[in-house]
Amino acid sequence: MQTLQTTSLRVRDNQLFILDQQALPQQARWLEANSVASLVEHILTLRVRGAPLIGLSASLLLGLLAERGLDRAALREALETLRASRPTAVNLMNNLERMKQALAQENYVAALVAEAERLVAEDRLLCERIAAAGSALVAPGSRLLTHCNTGGLATAGVGTALGVINLAHRQGKVANVWVDETRPLLQGGRLTAWELRELGVPYQLITDSMAASLMAQGQVDAVWVGADRIAASGDVANKIGTYSLAVLAKFHNIPFYVAAPQTTLDPDCPNGAAIPIEQRAPAEVTGAAGSFGSVQWAPADARVYNPAFDVTPAELISGWVLDCGLVTPAQARDGFFAARR
Amino acid sequence: MQTLQTTSLRVRDNQLFILDQQALPQQARWLEANSVASLVEHILTLRVRGAPLIGLSASLLLGLLAERGLDRAALREALETLRASRPTAVNLMNNLERMKQALAQENYVAALVAEAERLVAEDRLLCERIAAAGSALVAPGSRLLTHCNTGGLATAGVGTALGVINLAHRQGKVANVWVDETRPLLQGGRLTAWELRELGVPYQLITDSMAASLMAQGQVDAVWVGADRIAASGDVANKIGTYSLAVLAKFHNIPFYVAAPQTTLDPDCPNGAAIPIEQRAPAEVTGAAGSFGSVQWAPADARVYNPAFDVTPAELISGWVLDCGLVTPAQARDGFFAARR
Repeated sequence: MQTLQTTSLRVRDNQLFILDQQALPQQARWLEANSVASLVEHILTLRVRGAPLIGLSASLLLGLLAERGLDRAALREALETLRASRPTAVNLMNNLERMKQALAQENYVAALVAEAERLVAEDRLLCERIAAAGSALVAPGSRLLTHCNTGGLATAGVGTALGVINLAHRQGKVANVWVDETRPLLQGGRLTAWELRELGVPYQLITDSMAASLMAQGQVDAVWVGADRIAASGDVANKIGTYSLAVLAKFHNIPFYVAAPQTTLDPDCPNGAAIPIEQRAPAEVTGAAGSFGSVQWAPADARVYNPAFDVTPAELISGWVLDCGLVTPAQARDGFFAARR
Repeated sequence: MQTLQTTSLRVRDNQLFILDQQALPQQARWLEANSVASLVEHILTLRVRGAPLIGLSASLLLGLLAERGLDRAALREALETLRASRPTAVNLMNNLERMKQALAQENYVAALVAEAERLVAEDRLLCERIAAAGSALVAPGSRLLTHCNTGGLATAGVGTALGVINLAHRQGKVANVWVDETRPLLQGGRLTAWELRELGVPYQLITDSMAASLMAQGQVDAVWVGADRIAASGDVANKIGTYSLAVLAKFHNIPFYVAAPQTTLDPDCPNGAAIPIEQRAPAEVTGAAGSFGSVQWAPADARVYNPAFDVTPAELISGWVLDCGLVTPAQARDGFFAARR
C-alpha cells in the first residue's frame, strides 16, 4: 500500500499506525494497529475515534492484511469483527460494505487496497466540500458553539463541523468558538481545544452545563455538531449531549447545524429510535482517565448510566450540511434521506 | 459556645471545625476554621459550601471570635470580610445581617453567640419544613433528577432539595434519583452520590449532558434543585447547569421545583439580571482536583469561561418550596417574593 498520512492515521512500510487520541493533547503517541485485535482494542478505548476515521482505519487495515496474504475467508472474518467494534457510528458499516464488494472481486488484494486508498482520498474531498457548503452559512462575527471533536483528528481531511468552523475562521467570520468539554471522555476539552489552538482559531472551553446560560445571554449565534448516523427521517445520533444542545438551541431560537459526509447516512434505518446506542463502562463517569492521569471522585460502587450517544430528532435540526450541500428541513421532510437507499 | 454538631459543622471546646467537602467522599477530614482568614479560604475553595451552610459557618465563627474577646470594631471588620467571600449566595448576607444587629446590642458577646446558635437551630427546622412541604409534591414511583448537592452537607439539617428527596424516599415514593455529576466541581458525583448511598436512596450517576436524553425517554418525572438566591421576581440563581435543566424540563413538560429556606430570599434584588455571578479559575475546567487526585486534560493555556452559577427565570419554575410551604407561579407573579421586603 502507498505511504499515507492524515492527522491521525499513518501507513508506512505497509504498517498501519494510529495517533493515540486518548494520549492527546499531553502526548503525540503513534501506536501500531496491525492486527484486527489491536485495532478493535484501539476503537473500543477511543484511541481511534470519530465516525469517519473509524471506518477508514478499518478499511486500511483490511487492505494491508490482504497484501500480507490473508485469504478471502480470513479477510471476511476480519471484516465482520471490525464491523462489530462500535455499534452506533454507521460510517464503519458503510465503508466496510464497500470493502466487502472489493473482497468479492477476483483480484481482491488489489481491489481492497485500491478501495481503502480511495475511501481515504474521498473522505478528504468530502470534508472540503462540507467545509465549503457549511462556511457559507456562517455570518461574519459569529460566536459558534461545538460539541465533542469533529476535526482533522476525526477524519482524513479537515473535519466535519470543525472543518466548517476552521474555514469560516479563515474567511474572517468567526469571533469565538465555545467548546463543550464533552463529558465523560472530554473530546472537547482535550482534542477540540488542542486542534483550535493549533489552527489559531479563538476559542473558550466550557463545561457542558454552561451552554444554556451562554445562549440566554445572546453569546451563541449557531451550534455546529457532527454525526455518527443519520436515519431516513433525518434524525441524528451523535455524541451524548448533542440532543441537549439541540433542545437548548430551539428554545433560544439559535440555528443548529449537523455536518457530516454521506458515509454517515443510513437510509435503511427509519428513524432515531432504531439506532443502537452504545452503553459504556461506569468508570468513565465515576472519574476520568487518560495520558493526563487517572482519578476517581465518585464512590467506587456508584450506580452509573453511561450512554455514549443520544438521538436528535429531525425537527430540532436547522440544516444538515453534507458534502453534496445543505439539506433543508423541508427537503428532509420530503424524504431526502430516505431516498438515498 | 455550646457544643454543636451538624453533618459538616462542629463546635467543640469553643473551636469551629468544618468537614472538608473537597476531600469527600474519599476522606472524612475535619479542618479547623478558627480565624477569618482560614474560613474565607475554606469558603473560596469550597471546603465549606452550600448556600445555607456558608452563612451558618460565618455566623458561628463570629460568635466564637466574640467570646475570645475581639472588640466591636474587629468583629465588624471580620463580618464584612466574611460577607465578601462569596458574592452569589445570599444566605451569607442574610445571616450576617442578623449577626450585625446582634453586634449592635450592648451585650454583644452573648447576643452574637445566641444569634449564631439560633441560626443553626432555625436552619434545621427550615429544612424539616421544606422536606415536609416538598415531599407532598412527589408522586409514588417517581424518578427524580437533581443537580449539585443540597443535602445534609449543605445545611445544618436534612438539606433542601435532597431533604425533600430523602423524605419522599422514606415515604416509599422514590423509584430512582438521577444525579447530575455537576461539573466543574463535581458536587453531584462526589457529594450527592455519597449522601444518597449513605441514606440508602436508589440513585444513578450521570454526566450533566445526559439529562436531556433521559427526559426524552420519559425517565424523569420531576427535577428538584436548591437555590443560592431568589430575587423579588422569583428568578433563581443556582449552581451552573440549573438553567439548562429548567429549559430542558420545560421542553419535555416536566415539573421543575426549587427548594430553599427563606434565608435564600433577596427581595431587594429585583430579578436575575441583578444577581452577581461569581467567575472562577480556569483550572477548574481544564481538569479536576480534590482529595481524589489532580489531573489536567486540556491545554494548559486554554482560554476558559467558568461562571459558578446561572440564573433560572421564574417562568421556568413550577414551584418554589420554602419552609413556609409551596409558592406557586401565580403567587410569584402576584409579588410573593417582592413582598418579603
